[in-house]
Amino acid sequence: MLLTQLREEVLEANLELVRGGLVLYTFGNASGVDREQGLVVIKPSGVDYDKLKPEHMVVTDLEGNIIEGNLRPSSDLNTHTLLYREFGEIGAVVHTHSEFATSFAQAGLPIPAFGTTHADYFHGPVPVTAPLSDEAIEGQYVRETGAAIVARFRGGEDCAAIDPLAVPACLVHGHAPFVWGKTPHEAAHNAVVLEAVARMAYRTLSLEANTQEVSHTLLDRHYFRKHGAKATYGQSRKEHNL
Amino acid sequence: MLLTQLREEVLEANLELVRGGLVLYTFGNASGVDREQGLVVIKPSGVDYDKLKPEHMVVTDLEGNIIEGNLRPSSDLNTHTLLYREFGEIGAVVHTHSEFATSFAQAGLPIPAFGTTHADYFHGPVPVTAPLSDEAIEGQYVRETGAAIVARFRGGEDCAAIDPLAVPACLVHGHAPFVWGKTPHEAAHNAVVLEAVARMAYRTLSLEANTQEVSHTLLDRHYFRKHGAKATYGQSRKEHNL
Amino acid sequence: MLLTQLREEVLEANLELVRGGLVLYTFGNASGVDREQGLVVIKPSGVDYDKLKPEHMVVTDLEGNIIEGNLRPSSDLNTHTLLYREFGEIGAVVHTHSEFATSFAQAGLPIPAFGTTHADYFHGPVPVTAPLSDEAIEGQYVRETGAAIVARFRGGEDCAAIDPLAVPACLVHGHAPFVWGKTPHEAAHNAVVLEAVARMAYRTLSLEANTQEVSHTLLDRHYFRKHGAKATYGQSRKEHNL
Amino acid sequence: MLLTQLREEVLEANLELVRGGLVLYTFGNASGVDREQGLVVIKPSGVDYDKLKPEHMVVTDLEGNIIEGNLRPSSDLNTHTLLYREFGEIGAVVHTHSEFATSFAQAGLPIPAFGTTHADYFHGPVPVTAPLSDEAIEGQYVRETGAAIVARFRGGEDCAAIDPLAVPACLVHGHAPFVWGKTPHEAAHNAVVLEAVARMAYRTLSLEANTQEVSHTLLDRHYFRKHGAKATYGQSRKEHNL
Repeated sequence: MLLTQLREEVLEANLELVRGGLVLYTFGNASGVDREQGLVVIKPSGVDYDKLKPEHMVVTDLEGNIIEGNLRPSSDLNTHTLLYREFGEIGAVVHTHSEFATSFAQAGLPIPAFGTTHADYFHGPVPVTAPLSDEAIEGQYVRETGAAIVARFRGGEDCAAIDPLAVPACLVHGHAPFVWGKTPHEAAHNAVVLEAVARMAYRTLSLEANTQEVSHTLLDRHYFRKHGAKATYGQSRKEHNL
Repeated sequence: MLLTQLREEVLEANLELVRGGLVLYTFGNASGVDREQGLVVIKPSGVDYDKLKPEHMVVTDLEGNIIEGNLRPSSDLNTHTLLYREFGEIGAVVHTHSEFATSFAQAGLPIPAFGTTHADYFHGPVPVTAPLSDEAIEGQYVRETGAAIVARFRGGEDCAAIDPLAVPACLVHGHAPFVWGKTPHEAAHNAVVLEAVARMAYRTLSLEANTQEVSHTLLDRHYFRKHGAKATYGQSRKEHNL
Repeated sequence: MLLTQLREEVLEANLELVRGGLVLYTFGNASGVDREQGLVVIKPSGVDYDKLKPEHMVVTDLEGNIIEGNLRPSSDLNTHTLLYREFGEIGAVVHTHSEFATSFAQAGLPIPAFGTTHADYFHGPVPVTAPLSDEAIEGQYVRETGAAIVARFRGGEDCAAIDPLAVPACLVHGHAPFVWGKTPHEAAHNAVVLEAVARMAYRTLSLEANTQEVSHTLLDRHYFRKHGAKATYGQSRKEHNL
Repeated sequence: MLLTQLREEVLEANLELVRGGLVLYTFGNASGVDREQGLVVIKPSGVDYDKLKPEHMVVTDLEGNIIEGNLRPSSDLNTHTLLYREFGEIGAVVHTHSEFATSFAQAGLPIPAFGTTHADYFHGPVPVTAPLSDEAIEGQYVRETGAAIVARFRGGEDCAAIDPLAVPACLVHGHAPFVWGKTPHEAAHNAVVLEAVARMAYRTLSLEANTQEVSHTLLDRHYFRKHGAKATYGQSRKEHNL
């Protein structure tokens, strides 16, 4: 069986979505990529989480062709593979319909960076894509969903480009969030924190609709506290293994 | 004992409402119909869920006459039987007072189709009935509740007709949702998803009161992804039995 | 030991508040009255719920004098005893700071009767008292809290009288709900439903601030479905003991 | 090992934050101070709560120099130590990103004293600091966070001074709450109640944006019911040990 370790990690990331309260029934999916072999491991479609085992994971290439597995892959496969092809540094993708992040997506609004919880994980607002055109919806819809995410991060006339490692999440307009990270563990962790951040942004806007986002100085201070060479949060790898 | 299999399915659907967090105390009820025999199996009234057994289910005919059972049937029986008589293709009915769907019903508002979660299950907004007249309330009130649902789906001068299989739920004005499906399992599942969809519609409206509903193109794309001959979600029946 | 049966019932009602999610730490209290003996059984003050035993309950007379018990009674005792003296038909009183009912009390707003869930338990809006005067707060504050409830139910120039059996709950302005019933079980049950009804009224007002209350016809239909000689909900006492 | 008893108390306070639902992943931290020895015991940074043991706690002096321990202390250490130096009567500090208190902090709003639940614990609104300047953020940021809290309690031209024992919590603008008490147990307890109070204040403002705070008379009555020589709530120490 291919990629036994990555299968375990992808399974565990899927289960973390359940533990984090992001999942109803079989909604949601997580995948991971092996960059050397150019292979993706993804959850099968519509299978109960409590029955999932590593051998149920589906292995595809970066174009979504099935390489190993008897089950259908997640119906969102082609969004995952497009993100892997376009965002060369990410190692895992997670998709959920978690309540508050999805509500921002449905309202067509980004999640503003209102505080340090947000800044610890997302170096700026979590953006929302443009609505998909009818042509995109009627065409390669799942692939087009990924293309809308990539277009938003590439930026353009209306909006600045965003570094997908600095802001590892995007809301798809009228749909729900896609979240990523360097590993399946990190992507799932980011998805759980995204939902917490979305809850607090929702409450903040209810309390004061004109709340200003935090300053760039604060964004930098918090983001680089947990990321990069000068990070001061947590233990070194060895100490973390208590 | 009649209909032993359907009794099990109806019991299980009632318990799924509890697991889905839709139920307080003895609120809520689920039923199923055997179309060949013209018999309905329904939860008894006001019995604790954790004591329910298949033999407690009450069997009635399609007019609500008790055929088998020592307990009183759910006080909403006559709504269920009317729906079975009028919506010839449905196989099960569920009624809950779940918090967010009930709040839309109390506000007299339909649940708009704001995203793909909604579109996966409901091919358009979940409608709300007209308020019942004093005559209806003082008359055959429970039956009239069903009649108000049927009237809304039949349509008329003010509103278009709706296919009860394409939108398997209705909010009763000032009351709560009724939800249906082809099987008790599907009806209960739809009721759980309806509550999730109602939660997200509520949050969406709080964030942006003027949010537009998703396009008909998106409704079609998502609905037919999970329903009909061209469905691509999940596993074939055989593969689903892991 | 006096009143062993009532002690058990009062303890069980206190624990039902915990199970219903109405209680944080040692907040909340329930009591019951033995009308023949003129004695009240009430929870002790500030004791952890998971340590409570029947022998910890405090027995007082209707004036709040301790008859049996080594622990201090709930600090709200004098509200309970006043309600027993003034509302001659009630058998139990419950007090909680449950989140949504308390929020209506803090906003100084009654809980409107927006739907059938409400109407099944409360035959009209759940009222809120007038704010207590500085004199009342600085005087016999706990007793005055009860007096404000009684004043609201007696009615006057500004507001109609309310039957405490038809609407078994009141919000104390800037404080929280007091709820009652014929038995400790019923009072605790009413408190749990009150919180559910308050949640839905809050959501309903958020969706549509101008929502109208249900008609008197609907209030009557639902209230008398569960109460009085013509009740049709649930099983007769014998059938209920499955 | 130094301070074995205080280590246990600090660990227990950290775990109480988890039980109270205030914590996601490794967010949050609690500390305690030994005033005689001038030593602080604090949670290590970024360690899973379910692995925490007393020996993992880090001991520092009041300037934040590590005296005992192999793990990095919480990244918020310098806020804790500043509060211990400036607020001479407090014995423990807790920091969380609990959802509703953090949302008030993000909105830059104090938590108003809307009811008796609040008044039982906080003798007036829970204040919010001024936003930190860019210089403070780029400088000794963690220490400056504590300085902003102290500045708010010292008062000045714009705002009255506050007694840190009478209002044992402060919201840091754009960040989250810091809460304290005489003991680690009390500080954690106060943090859990703060979140409950914040939830109810949020609901109250949603229901009625112009809600007035409770009177000073009511604040006094409730606060001194639980605090000070004339407290009447709960049992004496001996009776509490049931």
